[in-house]
This record gives sequence, structure tokens and C-alpha cells, in this order.
Amino acid sequence: DFLSALDEVKPLFGVSEEELERCVEGGIIKFSPHIDTILNRGRLHINQVRDNSTPLLSVLIHGPRGSGKTALAARLAMDSGFPFIKLVRPVDMIGMNEIQKIQHLQKVFTDAYKSPLNVLVIDNVELLVDWVPVGPRFSASVLAALKGLMDNKPPKGRPLLILATTTERTVLQQLQLTFMAQIAVPNVQTQAELAYIMQQSGAFAEKDVNRVIKEIEDATGGKQIGVGVQTVLTGIQTARQDPDHAGRFVELLSEAVAENRFS
Amino acid sequence: DFLSALDEVKPLFGVSEEELERCVEGGIIKFSPHIDTILNRGRLHINQVRDNSTPLLSVLIHGPRGSGKTALAARLAMDSGFPFIKLVRPVDMIGMNEIQKIQHLQKVFTDAYKSPLNVLVIDNVELLVDWVPVGPRFSASVLAALKGLMDNKPPKGRPLLILATTTERTVLQQLQLTFMAQIAVPNVQTQAELAYIMQQSGAFAEKDVNRVIKEIEDATGGKQIGVGVQTVLTGIQTARQDPDHAGRFVELLSEAVAENRFS
Amino acid sequence: DFLSALDEVKPLFGVSEEELERCVEGGIIKFSPHIDTILNRGRLHINQVRDNSTPLLSVLIHGPRGSGKTALAARLAMDSGFPFIKLVRPVDMIGMNEIQKIQHLQKVFTDAYKSPLNVLVIDNVELLVDWVPVGPRFSASVLAALKGLMDNKPPKGRPLLILATTTERTVLQQLQLTFMAQIAVPNVQTQAELAYIMQQSGAFAEKDVNRVIKEIEDATGGKQIGVGVQTVLTGIQTARQDPDHAGRFVELLSEAVAENRFS
Amino acid sequence: DFLSALDEVKPLFGVSEEELERCVEGGIIKFSPHIDTILNRGRLHINQVRDNSTPLLSVLIHGPRGSGKTALAARLAMDSGFPFIKLVRPVDMIGMNEIQKIQHLQKVFTDAYKSPLNVLVIDNVELLVDWVPVGPRFSASVLAALKGLMDNKPPKGRPLLILATTTERTVLQQLQLTFMAQIAVPNVQTQAELAYIMQQSGAFAEKDVNRVIKEIEDATGGKQIGVGVQTVLTGIQTARQDPDHAGRFVELLSEAVAENRFS
Amino acid sequence: DFLSALDEVKPLFGVSEEELERCVEGGIIKFSPHIDTILNRGRLHINQVRDNSTPLLSVLIHGPRGSGKTALAARLAMDSGFPFIKLVRPVDMIGMNEIQKIQHLQKVFTDAYKSPLNVLVIDNVELLVDWVPVGPRFSASVLAALKGLMDNKPPKGRPLLILATTTERTVLQQLQLTFMAQIAVPNVQTQAELAYIMQQSGAFAEKDVNRVIKEIEDATGGKQIGVGVQTVLTGIQTARQDPDHAGRFVELLSEAVAENRFS
Amino acid sequence: DFLSALDEVKPLFGVSEEELERCVEGGIIKFSPHIDTILNRGRLHINQVRDNSTPLLSVLIHGPRGSGKTALAARLAMDSGFPFIKLVRPVDMIGMNEIQKIQHLQKVFTDAYKSPLNVLVIDNVELLVDWVPVGPRFSASVLAALKGLMDNKPPKGRPLLILATTTERTVLQQLQLTFMAQIAVPNVQTQAELAYIMQQSGAFAEKDVNRVIKEIEDATGGKQIGVGVQTVLTGIQTARQDPDHAGRFVELLSEAVAENRFS
Ligand SMILES: Nc1ncnc2c1ncn2[C@@H]1O[C@H](COP(=O)(O)OP(=O)(O)OP(=O)(O)O)[C@@H](O)[C@H]1O
Ligand SMILES: Nc1ncnc2c1ncn2[C@@H]1O[C@H](COP(=O)(O)OP(=O)(O)OP(=O)(O)O)[C@@H](O)[C@H]1O
Ligand SMILES: Nc1ncnc2c1ncn2[C@@H]1O[C@H](COP(=O)(O)OP(=O)(O)OP(=O)(O)O)[C@@H](O)[C@H]1O
Ligand SMILES: Nc1ncnc2c1ncn2[C@@H]1O[C@H](COP(=O)(O)OP(=O)(O)OP(=O)(O)O)[C@@H](O)[C@H]1O
Ligand SMILES: Nc1ncnc2c1ncn2[C@@H]1O[C@H](COP(=O)(O)OP(=O)(O)OP(=O)(O)O)[C@@H](O)[C@H]1O
Ligand SMILES: Nc1ncnc2c1ncn2[C@@H]1O[C@H](COP(=O)(O)OP(=O)(O)OP(=O)(O)O)[C@@H](O)[C@H]1O
Ligand SMILES: [Mg+2]
Ligand SMILES: [Mg+2]
Ligand SMILES: [Mg+2]
Ligand SMILES: [Mg+2]
Ligand SMILES: [Mg+2]
Ligand SMILES: [Mg+2]
Repeated sequence: DFLSALDEVKPLFGVSEEELERCVEGGIIKFSPHIDTILNRGRLHINQVRDNSTPLLSVLIHGPRGSGKTALAARLAMDSGFPFIKLVRPVDMIGMNEIQKIQHLQKVFTDAYKSPLNVLVIDNVELLVDWVPVGPRFSASVLAALKGLMDNKPPKGRPLLILATTTERTVLQQLQLTFMAQIAVPNVQTQAELAYIMQQSGAFAEKDVNRVIKEIEDATGGKQIGVGVQTVLTGIQTARQDPDHAGRFVELLSEAVAENRFS
Repeated sequence: DFLSALDEVKPLFGVSEEELERCVEGGIIKFSPHIDTILNRGRLHINQVRDNSTPLLSVLIHGPRGSGKTALAARLAMDSGFPFIKLVRPVDMIGMNEIQKIQHLQKVFTDAYKSPLNVLVIDNVELLVDWVPVGPRFSASVLAALKGLMDNKPPKGRPLLILATTTERTVLQQLQLTFMAQIAVPNVQTQAELAYIMQQSGAFAEKDVNRVIKEIEDATGGKQIGVGVQTVLTGIQTARQDPDHAGRFVELLSEAVAENRFS
Repeated sequence: DFLSALDEVKPLFGVSEEELERCVEGGIIKFSPHIDTILNRGRLHINQVRDNSTPLLSVLIHGPRGSGKTALAARLAMDSGFPFIKLVRPVDMIGMNEIQKIQHLQKVFTDAYKSPLNVLVIDNVELLVDWVPVGPRFSASVLAALKGLMDNKPPKGRPLLILATTTERTVLQQLQLTFMAQIAVPNVQTQAELAYIMQQSGAFAEKDVNRVIKEIEDATGGKQIGVGVQTVLTGIQTARQDPDHAGRFVELLSEAVAENRFS
Repeated sequence: DFLSALDEVKPLFGVSEEELERCVEGGIIKFSPHIDTILNRGRLHINQVRDNSTPLLSVLIHGPRGSGKTALAARLAMDSGFPFIKLVRPVDMIGMNEIQKIQHLQKVFTDAYKSPLNVLVIDNVELLVDWVPVGPRFSASVLAALKGLMDNKPPKGRPLLILATTTERTVLQQLQLTFMAQIAVPNVQTQAELAYIMQQSGAFAEKDVNRVIKEIEDATGGKQIGVGVQTVLTGIQTARQDPDHAGRFVELLSEAVAENRFS
Repeated sequence: DFLSALDEVKPLFGVSEEELERCVEGGIIKFSPHIDTILNRGRLHINQVRDNSTPLLSVLIHGPRGSGKTALAARLAMDSGFPFIKLVRPVDMIGMNEIQKIQHLQKVFTDAYKSPLNVLVIDNVELLVDWVPVGPRFSASVLAALKGLMDNKPPKGRPLLILATTTERTVLQQLQLTFMAQIAVPNVQTQAELAYIMQQSGAFAEKDVNRVIKEIEDATGGKQIGVGVQTVLTGIQTARQDPDHAGRFVELLSEAVAENRFS
Repeated sequence: DFLSALDEVKPLFGVSEEELERCVEGGIIKFSPHIDTILNRGRLHINQVRDNSTPLLSVLIHGPRGSGKTALAARLAMDSGFPFIKLVRPVDMIGMNEIQKIQHLQKVFTDAYKSPLNVLVIDNVELLVDWVPVGPRFSASVLAALKGLMDNKPPKGRPLLILATTTERTVLQQLQLTFMAQIAVPNVQTQAELAYIMQQSGAFAEKDVNRVIKEIEDATGGKQIGVGVQTVLTGIQTARQDPDHAGRFVELLSEAVAENRFS
């Protein structure tokens, strides 16, 4: 019966919860209005699954490296309050062969079919199928399994929301791994966004923030910054180790901006 | 003898029936005259097999993603009233290796050779051979098996109709998996078709339907919509969660139209 | 000794005979003078093997899909009256791995070396080596085995005729699978040929034949029809299910002509 | 000791002798002065190995399909009178995996190292390494083994001549399978050569020979014929079955000439 | 508990220390100010991990062959004073299959998760994934494992610094093996740098140094030298064997400069 | 202890010595001053390893097929007088799989680490990694092992000289198998070089030498000959079998020159 089924999958839930929390450790900084737009759209999808009007819904959360995709997907999953939440990450499958990966995926979906409301976070879905752009290479059999599982309507009364993240939206299109809805996550783009993150970090005096913004504006010619929030946050920590916080941060960030522009 | 042979395959039939019904759960909305044309052509093929004038007939039902191919194939199969109906789906073969897949296919055809009238629905036939456009990749051995089985005349008095669905008609031509007849399934294309589906969904007031149609007409410049019925139906359910049903639906549908046009 | 050797291979012969007959079930309609030319050339080859002046002769029967290659090869083999006739078809090797296929082929040739006059019909020889144009892919080891076996002179007094069919003559050239003689089989090309087949089918009144021919002439601009006899025969059976035989047949045949021209 | 070593390899010799004789069954027709030039060059190589001034010598006999390469190599090997002669053919390795093929080759060379004078005929050396131009494909490990073995100086007093045949001289260059000497074998090229073969066959009256030559001259515009001696000989046998020997032979040969020119 | 965990991994540490020391055997010659800049940046990264403000930090040390990358990474690791230091080199994995390599990597990371401060030196990271530009080829599964491990946040209180070296920075970008920071190591470029190394080597008299510099200046047209410090040091040892130290060194170095420029 | 370690590897040494001697059987003819330059450069490298100033040194001896690379490497190794000399040849690894090859290589290096002075001759290093230009193909795992082993500094007091030969210098660069020094071996290029070899062979009267030189000069238009010393020596032996030594030699050599120029 239903209660015992829930018991059965509980340990999995517990494990995932801890991992999900680690994904949003520092909290979500709302450095741009896009962050709210993303969370709102995500909540509509949660609700259409909750009221079973769409019993199977797959949503792709896509954007550049280190832009916060996993943090946002984890946030949405935890906020849903669904009884079954499961995080599927490539790292959990290291050392598995293709057959074992497929069995792992089958188990994840089978577990999901046991609870009355389910959300799966499939992180870096392109890595799950071992995508490498050189070649290109990927695991055709894991991909086939994922397509089959994501296309398979759950049993009555077991609606399922799939939140997948990726840096490789076009790759997934080429692999014909299709989703029923899509949400885009942007890089840090404006000086204002950058200043907001610096302030929230508590690492810089106000005048240092201003100096950095000014020098970055000069270095970038006032154009979009185009760097992931992760690079910004890591750079702040490196710069902090240098007596000249602001100077070192400008150096590091300029390198990151140049790197992204020319590669 | 014959009756016991029928008994033997009954359980398979039962399983398939339930699955087939799930494929047309919401019923077929006849949003376009094409839907009737498709069903009529399909019935001619059912009859030429029924009266054994074509003892082996393979029909390809092709069209874009989410256009209703599976629903229509399932409808035709169930309407045939043939004693043996079998749905073959990629998801049923997840985790099988190539040899197991081939054995599964052989069993399906062998079962079909036992009943006096047979229809096989082979869903997403390109996925059955593990087709991925990147590479491209596919299972040459499963493909070879499928060719051999589809080319093999059934025993006397066991006529067989094969209804296969695909989004990849040209791929199947390249793979030289040939069919004796073909049926095309279209996307939702006109404003009238869209309005009809919105009305049938019961999710919109008449004035909202009009507003949506008008705004979509503006957004698309009055051109063809070109979106699968599945995307339309899912978008309706998402929009329903938003207080501004119509506004959100226009947003979602516009995104889908743009997505299809530029990729 | 010789008689017991013949006994040994008899069961194989029996099986093949039934299969060979199924290949020409409806009889050969001589819709074109080419049919007789093909049968005559084939008989010369049978005779040069029969009188042992060419102890090993490989003949390739090539032409478009559904043009009647297998029917003609089967007809020739059965007419030869040779004591050992064997039909080798890809479907018989489904589920075999490459090693098993090679062993199967070796057995077929070894069996042939036991009888005083032998003919092997190797049907769809490109599929026997698992050819797929995408890639392209094929089984290099089965191909190597086939080359070796087809190049190996039979023991004294055991002349062997190999009749192979294919839709992929140029592919076989590229694979360097060479034959000592070649015979081409054409599509249905002229209005007269089409009319002849319609009459022989008994499905149309004379005035319907005329109407079809006229409308097809219009639709094709009087050019060559270029459709396999199989497509014509199947289309006749589909059209027969429609009250308007002739109209439906024109529709189906026009589609087939267009399909062949533009792909 | 030496005598017992010779005993040891005798059975191999015996088998090869029979096979070698089958390769020149009909005798060598000297339809062109090239045939003598080839045999002379080959005898120089036999002698430089016989007197041990070149203890290891590899010779490549190359030319188009069916031009007589194997027949000439077999003739030379049998004429050498060397105590150890071995014919290595792809057909002998059918069904072996790469490891078994390599072991087979190693055994052939080891056997050769036991006799005071040795000749290996390696027939269709490109097929031995499973070469297929599509891909292209080949067995890298068998190729590596063959390179190693052909590069390995035999023990003192065990000179070894390797006669390899191929239709794919440039392929062997690309595979870096190098030979110390090379001999080219041509097709039948002139009307005189053709007439000579027809006469030797005894299948045509003198006036038929003249008629054929005249008609072929017309059909080819007096250009080179460019057809292998095998095709000529087989065509003669086919034509013989037709009451009109000469007419049928012209038809067949014209097809062969056209085939070679346009593919 | 913690102390026993440290004990557990001690042997590993010991082994690595000896190997690390061999990497900087001759000491670091500071032939250019870049050497100090590199060491300083490296120390910032060590500190941001030490104070746990960045619990997981991956740094890529990239530059041409033989430029001193491994020596510098070893120097930094030894100077950190972290309790767990581990050198991961391709040579340690010779003869392991992909699964064993992945298990080895997993063990290295698991060991690192046991100590309060950790640094892994992953030497020639492109070789760890068996990268070869021809093909190109690499181990997709080892790459996937490395991505997963490098993306996996260590447990609380176990910060981890990863110092990876490579000659193939763009390759790693193509393989999407990303790092959170990057440090570039240059070749020997100026005449002054070359003179400094020659002097430190003690192999040349002052006037020989001047002669070499002058002749190299002529030979290179005064342009950048562009040769790794390793080539310079080896060339000095070869030249030392020749009575004409300076002349031979100019010859060898000129060859090296030319080699690098034209390949 | 040391003496027993030497004992341990003695058998290997013995085997290699015999094989090394076979590589220079006829002695080195100094047909060009390049031969002495090569031997001198090689001796510098031997000495820098002998005095341990470069404890690990890899030298690539490269040049066209049959130019004498192996003979020169063997000569240098034998002249070094080092206690451990080992010849590694592809032929010794025939029939080994990749794992066995890697283990063989590991053993060779481990043996070398036991003696106080070591030289490894790695012959045709491109074949050791199973390089074939078609594809291209090679063994990525053997290559990886070789890189690891050649990059691994030997234990203190066990200096190691690696002499590798190849016809494929650019391939090794592409495979990123790098060497610390390089030596080029040329073909026979001038008429004077050719005359010198003919004289040393003792196969020609002086006037025959002159006749050959004159005719070759005419045939080549006085340009470089560009043929390996091996081809020259083999051709001399073939020509010797013909009563007209000089005429036949001109024929053979002209063919070889033409062959090299146009392929
Ligand atoms: N809006 C945000 N506010 C604060 N921290 C954030 C925000 N978004 C992401 N982070 C932090 O930045 C780091 C990178 O974020 P995250 O891993 O979610 O990015 P990602 O887009 O999933 O990266 P990847 O492409 O590598 O998967 C994490 O430590 C995360 O906690
Ligand atoms: N004409 C229709 N009326 C109502 N619902 C439909 C219609 N056609 C399809 N549907 C519904 O739309 C969804 C998608 O349809 P279906 O799966 O048949 O499309 P498909 O073309 O087979 O898609 P895919 O390309 O993904 O296989 C299903 O839920 C189906 O029930
Ligand atoms: N001349 C003919 N007269 C009557 N029926 C024919 C004729 N030729 C072929 N058929 C029938 O048409 C169908 C297809 O013929 P067949 O299988 O021989 O064609 P094929 O060229 O071998 O096709 P494929 O390319 O698929 O192998 C068969 O049912 C066969 O009996
Ligand atoms: N000069 C010749 N005179 C008479 N018969 C010949 C002559 N050359 C070849 N033949 C015969 O022609 C046939 C083909 O010759 P052979 O097999 O030697 O050709 P090949 O060049 O080796 O062919 P392949 O390219 O298929 O290996 C054989 O039956 C052989 O006996
Ligand atoms: N700055 C330096 N001063 C003195 N010796 C150095 C210096 N840098 C490197 N070396 C020495 O040069 C040799 C090559 O250096 P190292 O192996 O660190 O280079 P690398 O860039 O890692 O080379 P590779 O690209 O082959 O991995 C070593 O023997 C090292 O000790
Ligand atoms: N300078 C020389 N004087 C006399 N004989 C030589 C000389 N160089 C090479 N040879 C002989 O020529 C033959 C080929 O030489 P060797 O095998 O060394 O050439 P290689 O360049 O190693 O050839 P490969 O490219 O095939 O490995 C051998 O028999 C060798 O003894
Ligand atoms: Mg992420
Ligand atoms: Mg479908
Ligand atoms: Mg057929
Ligand atoms: Mg041959
Ligand atoms: Mg290094
Ligand atoms: Mg050599």
C-alpha cells in the first residue's frame, strides 16, 4: 500500500535533501530580476504537476557554466514540498558501466512512480549521457534509456516533474532529447549586477566596489560582463587573500571576461 | 491448434490494450480535416490485410514531434478489431542489449504469426534501432533484424499489418528501412485549428480564445503556427496555473513558435 | 559415397524449395520484354555450369527495390533442375553474430560441394553483410568470408552457380565483392506495362484501366513511371478497398511516382 | 636435425602443391610478350634467393582483377623447385579471429625457417589484412604481424622468397606494407591478344574470331580493351551456350569493356 | 577519528613527497620575473583554500612542453605545508584499464576527503584521459570520472586544492574539463634569460656565454627564442661533451629554435 | 645487490647482442660524410648519459625507409660498451595484445633500471604503437605507456639512453611522443655515393660502374637519386643474376627512382 511504498523510498529522499541543500549553500543572491522570473515560471510547472493536469512534465533549465542552474533547480525542488525529491548527478554514476547507469536510472524512475507527487532533478543531463564535444562522443544506450524513461507516462495518480539542467541546450536538441518546457539562466551581465554581488559578499568596502566597477567598465569598454556568478564569487575569495583586494579582483575578473570573449 | 495458440498470446494482448488506451487518453480532437483523411487511409490498409489480398503490409505514419502519430496509430489498431494487437515501444527495451532486443522482436513477430489477423504498432521505429543524429549512430544489428522480419512473408492465412510511427522519415530512407505505404501527420497550423483546440480544452472563456488568437496572429505575422498538438495542450495546462490565463498562454505559445522556426 | 552425400543434404533442399516457391507465389507477369531477356541470359549461365565448362560462376541480379529480382532468381533456380538448390536470405541469419553467420555460410558452400550440380540463391547480398548506407556500415568479417568462399573453386565435378540479388550494385563494387556476370532488372516504366499489370490483376474494368492510364499520363507528364512492380501490385490491392477503385489507385500511384522522383 | 624438420612440414607442402596446381589449371596462355617478361624477372628473384645473396626477398605481383596474378605466382613457385612452397590464401583463414590469423601466419613463417630454400605465395595480400575500401577498413593487428614477419631476417642458411599478389598496390603503400621488388601484370589490351586467346580456346571458327575482333574494334573505337583474361575466358564459355557464339560473345565483351571504362 | 584517518593515508603522502622532490631536483632557476609572478598567484590560491573560503578550488597550470610546469606545481604543493599532498601522474596508471584508472582516481579523492587540508597535483592532465591529438582520441569514461570528481564539493571542513598541469589548454576546453583558475608558464624567450641559465649551469666560461648569445642572436634574427627550459638544460649537457662547448651548443640550440618555429 | 641484479638481466642482453649484430651484418659502408656526422653526434649523447649529467635521454633517429637507421642505432649501441643493451622490435611483440605489449615494455624499462648504464634501442617506434597512416590507426594505450615510461626519470645512478628509430618523424610529433634530441639519416643521393656502394659490393667491373652512373645520370636528369641504401644493395644482387649486370641494374634502379618520385 501507499504508506509502505513511501517508507521504502525514504532513505533516498534523505540523501538527496542533504545534497540539494549543499547546492544552494550560500543562498540565492537575487542580483538580477531574471532570478525571480525563473523561480516564478518554475512554480507554475510545479503546480500543473501538483494538480495532475499534466501528469508528466519535463523542464530544461539551461545556461552558461557556473550561472546558477543547479542552485535554482535545487531551490525549486525543495520549495515544491513534494514527498519524493531526487537529485541525479553524474558524479553518483562514476565507475558505473552503461548497463549499471541505465539500471540506476530505471530505479530512480521506478521509485518516483511510487509516491503521489514527484520531482527529479537531473543535473548536467549532457554529462549523464557522457557527452564530450570532441568526437563528439556520448553514450547512445544511456541516452536511449533516458529518452524512453522521459517519454513514459507515469501510472495514474503519480504525476512527475523532471527538472534537468544543462550548459548544452543545442546538443540536447541534436541528440533529440526533447523537453516539454524550457527556462534560461543568464550570466552576470551588468555593472549593477556585479556591484550587488560584491556588496552581498561583504568582502569589499564601498569605495572598493566603486573602484572595481569603474575599472571593469574601462577594461570592458562598458559592454556586457558575461561571466558566471560562480567565477565572480570565487574571484572575490582569491582577491581577499591579497592586501590589494580591489586591484587583484579587477585583474582576475578582467582575465575571466577576456577568456570568455575570445574562446 | 488454433484456439490454444490464441490463448497462448492473450496475456500480451491484454498488456498492449491498456498501453494503447493510455496513448489516446484524452480522445482524438479533430482539429483539422487531415485527422479524418488519415483515419480513412488507415482503414483501407486494415481492410486489405483483413481480406488477405495483401498478406504483409507495412505502413509508416510520420510527422513532427508531438503531432499525434502514436495516438492515431493506437486509435487505428484498436478500431481494427483484429484478434492480435501488439504495441512495440522503445521504453519496453530499455536495458536490453542488442541481442535481447532482436530476440524480443523475433518473439513479437512469431506471436503475430499465430493469430488469424494481426496488427503491430511499432512506435518511434527510429528509436527502436537506437538512432541518434549525432554521429549518426544506430544499432546496425537491430536494424538488420527489423528489415529481415518486416521483409518476411507471414505463413499462409496469417496476414499482418505493421503500423510504424516516426519523426525521422528521411532517416529511415537512408537506413533503407522501407515501407509499402506512408501516411503524413501534420502540426497545428492555422488560427482556426488553434482556436478549436482551446475551445475543446474548456480552459478559456470565449473572449480569451479570441484575444489569444489575435495576439498570436500579430506575433506570427499571420503565418502558419507549426507547433505540435502536444505543445499546445501542455501550454494550456501551464497557462491555467497563472491568474492571467490568456497572457501566459500567448507568452508560452510564442516561445514555442519561435523555437520551432529558428532551430 | 555420392548417393549418401546427396541424402545428407536433402532436408536443406526441401526447406529451400518451399521458400523459393513463396518468392514467385503469384507467378511472373511478363509485363515487359526485359523479363524474357533476363530469363534467357540466366539460362545460358545455368548451362555453362551444367556442362562444367565454367565450374564456378557468380552472377549478380541487380535492380531497384521491389522490381522482382528475388522472384526471377527463384524462377531460374527452380527451372535449372539442379539437384542442390539453396536459398540464402538475411532473415535466416537474424540474431546470429558474425561468427555464426560465417559458419552458416561455410556450411552452405560445403553442402554445395557435395552435389554434382549446385545453385545458390543469395538474396539481398548487401544485407547479408549488414550493409547500411549511413556510416556506412557493414560486417567486414562476413564480407571477407563471402569473398573467400565466392573466390574458392569447388572440387572437381561439383560445378556451382551463385545467383545473388541486390539493390546496391555500386556498393558491392565499392566493397570489392565482384561477380563474373551481371543481369539488370528494371522498374515498371511505360503506360503499356502498367496497363498490362492492371489487366492481369483482374481488379479493374477496362474503362477504369483506361482512365487510370490517362490520368497517370497527365500526372507524370508522359514521362517514365519508374515504380517497382511490387508497389504497383500493393497499390492495386489498397485501391480495391475503396469504392472508387480507379481514383484511389491514381492517387496512390501518383504519390509513389513523386516519392521516387524526389528522393 | 634437418631431415626430420623437412618431414615435419611435408604435409603442408603437399596440400599447397595441389592448390597451386588448381591455380594454373588451364595452363598459361602467352597472349602477350609481357607474360614472358614477368616470368623472367621472377626467375631472377628466385635465383638471388637460391644462392643466398639476398636471404630475405619480398616481391609484389600486382595488377587488375582477374589478370592472372595468382596463376603466374603459382607457376613461378612451382618452377623454383624449392623444397618448401606454401600458398597462403584468405579463404584458408575464414572464420579465424585476428589472433588466430596471426598465429597461422607465424606458423607459416616458422615452417619456412626450417627448410633450406623457401617460397611463400601470399595471395591477395590486401584481403589477408581484411582490407575493404569502404571506411576504409582493415585488420591493424594482422597488418602489424605481417609487417613484422616480412621484415624479420630468416635464420642463417634459410633464405626466403615471398611472392605476394594484389589488386591494390597503392593501398599497400598507404598501409606501409613495403616490398623489396615489384612486378606488374596487365589486362588483355589489344585486338591481337584477344584473337590469340579466342583461338587457343578452340571455341570459335576462324571467321567468328575475325567477326568478333571487327565488331569489338567498332564498339571500342579501336581503343585498348582493358579487360582481365578471366573475364575473356568466362565470356567465351557463356557465349558457347548460345547458338550465335560470336554475336553473344561480342555482347558480353562489350558490356565488360563498358563496365570497366565507366566505373 | 581524525588522527587515525591521517595515519591511514600517510604512506601515500610519503611516496608522493619523494616523487615531488624529484620534480624540482635541480632547484628552480628564476630566469624570468614570470617565475615569481606564478609562485605568488599560486600562493593566493593556497591561502583561499587554507582559510576554507573556497572549499574546492581547481587551478590549471598550462604552458609549452618542458617549460617547468611540473617543477612549479611541485614547488607550490611542497611549500603549502598542507598535511595531505598527492601527485597523480599518468606513469602511475600504465597498464591500468579505464575502470582501474577511475577507481584509482576515486581513491585519490576519497583519501583527500580525510585530511583537513589537501592538495592534489594532477600532472599532464590531458594524458590522464589518454588524449592523443590524432583522431583525436581520449578516454571518455576517465574524463567523465574526472569531471565528476572535480565538480564534487568535498565534505565540510576538508577543503581541497587541485593543481593540474597541461600542455593542451585548448584541448581541455574542448573536452569541457573546466577549472576555476588558470596560470600560464612561458618558454625561455630573451637572450638575457638564456644567458642567465647558461651562467647558472656553470658549464660555460663568461666569454663562451657571450659568444653563444651573439651567435644565437644572429641565427634567430634577434627574435624570441621560444624554447623550453628543459631543452636548454639538456643541450648544455650535450655540448659539454664536445671540446667546442660553445660551438656545439649554438648548433643544438639553433636546431631547437628552428624545429619549434616550423612545426 | 648489484651483481645479482646484473645476472638477472643477462639472458636478455645475450639475445639482444645477437640480434643487434644481425642488424649490421654487412658492416657500415661510409658512402657519405653524413654517416660519420651521425655516429659522432650519437657518441656525444652516449657520453652525456655515461657521466650521468643527463640521467634520462631520448634520441630519435629518423629517415626514409631502408636508409640504414637500424644499422646505425645498433652500431652506436654496441660501441657504447654499456652493460645493459636491449633491442626492442615490433616483431618481438607479434600476437601480443595491448596489455601484453605494455607489460613487455614495462619489463624492458624495469630491467634497464637495474644496471648502472643502459641503452634501449626502440626500433621502428611508430610500429610499436601499431601506427598505420590509413585511418589513421594506432594503439592509444601502448602509446600512453611509452610516453609514461619515456617521461619517467630512472632511479638515481641508473642513467638511461633511449635510441628510437622511425620513418615517421612527423607522425610521432602528431602523436606527441617527444624526444630530447634528434638525428636525421639520409637516402643515397649523389652519383658518387652510388658509385662508391657499387664498388664496395664487388659485383661490378669498373667500366660497368661507369656505364651505370652515366645511364642513371641520363635517366634522372642529373637530379638527386633519392633511394635507400637497402634498395641499392638488393638491386645489385638481383642484377648479378642477369648476364647483363649493368643493364639490369640500371633498369631496376630507374624503376626505384621513378617509384620514389611519383608516390
Ligand atoms: N544566485 C546565486 N546567488 C548566490 N550564489 C549562487 C547563485 N547562483 C549560484 N550560486 C553559487 O555559485 C556556485 C555555482 O552555482 P551552480 O553550481 O548552481 O551553477 P551551475 O550553473 O549549475 O554551474 P555548472 O554549469 O558548473 O553546473 C554555487 O556555489 C552556487 O551556490
Ligand atoms: N488529435 C488529438 N487530439 C487530442 N489529443 C491529442 C491528439 N493527438 C495527440 N494528442 C495527445 O497529445 C499528446 C502527444 O500525442 P502523441 O504522443 O500521439 O504524439 P506523437 O506524434 O506520437 O509524439 P512523439 O513524436 O513524441 O512520438 C498525447 O498526450 C496525445 O494523447
Ligand atoms: N514479374 C512479376 N510478375 C508478378 N509478380 C511479380 C513480378 N515480379 C515480382 N513480383 C512480385 O512482386 C513482389 C516483389 O518482388 P520481389 O520480392 O521479387 O522483388 P525484389 O526486387 O526482390 O524486391 P526487394 O528489392 O525488396 O528484394 C513479390 O510479391 C513478387 O512475387
Ligand atoms: N595467361 C593465362 N592463360 C590462361 N589462363 C589464365 C592466364 N592467366 C590467368 N588465367 C586463368 O584465368 C583465371 C583468373 O586468373 P587468376 O586467378 O590468376 O587471376 P588473378 O589476377 O589472380 O585474379 P584475382 O584478381 O581475382 O586474384 C584463372 O582461372 C586462371 O587459370
Ligand atoms: N625554472 C627552472 N629552473 C631550473 N630547472 C627547471 C626549471 N623549470 C624546469 N626545470 C627543470 O627542467 C626539466 C623540465 O621541467 P618540467 O618537467 O617541470 O617541465 P614541464 O613543463 O612539466 O614539462 P612537460 O611539458 O614535459 O611536462 C626538469 O628537469 C626540471 O627540473
Ligand atoms: N651504411 C650502410 N652500409 C652498408 N649496409 C648498410 C648501411 N646501412 C644499411 N645497410 C644495410 O641495408 C639494409 C637496410 O638497413 P636498415 O635496416 O638499417 O635500414 P632502416 O633505415 O632501418 O630500414 P627500415 O626503414 O626498413 O627500418 C640492412 O641490411 C643493412 O645492413
Ligand atoms: Mg550545475
Ligand atoms: Mg509518439
Ligand atoms: Mg528481393
Ligand atoms: Mg588472384
Ligand atoms: Mg610536466
Ligand atoms: Mg629499421
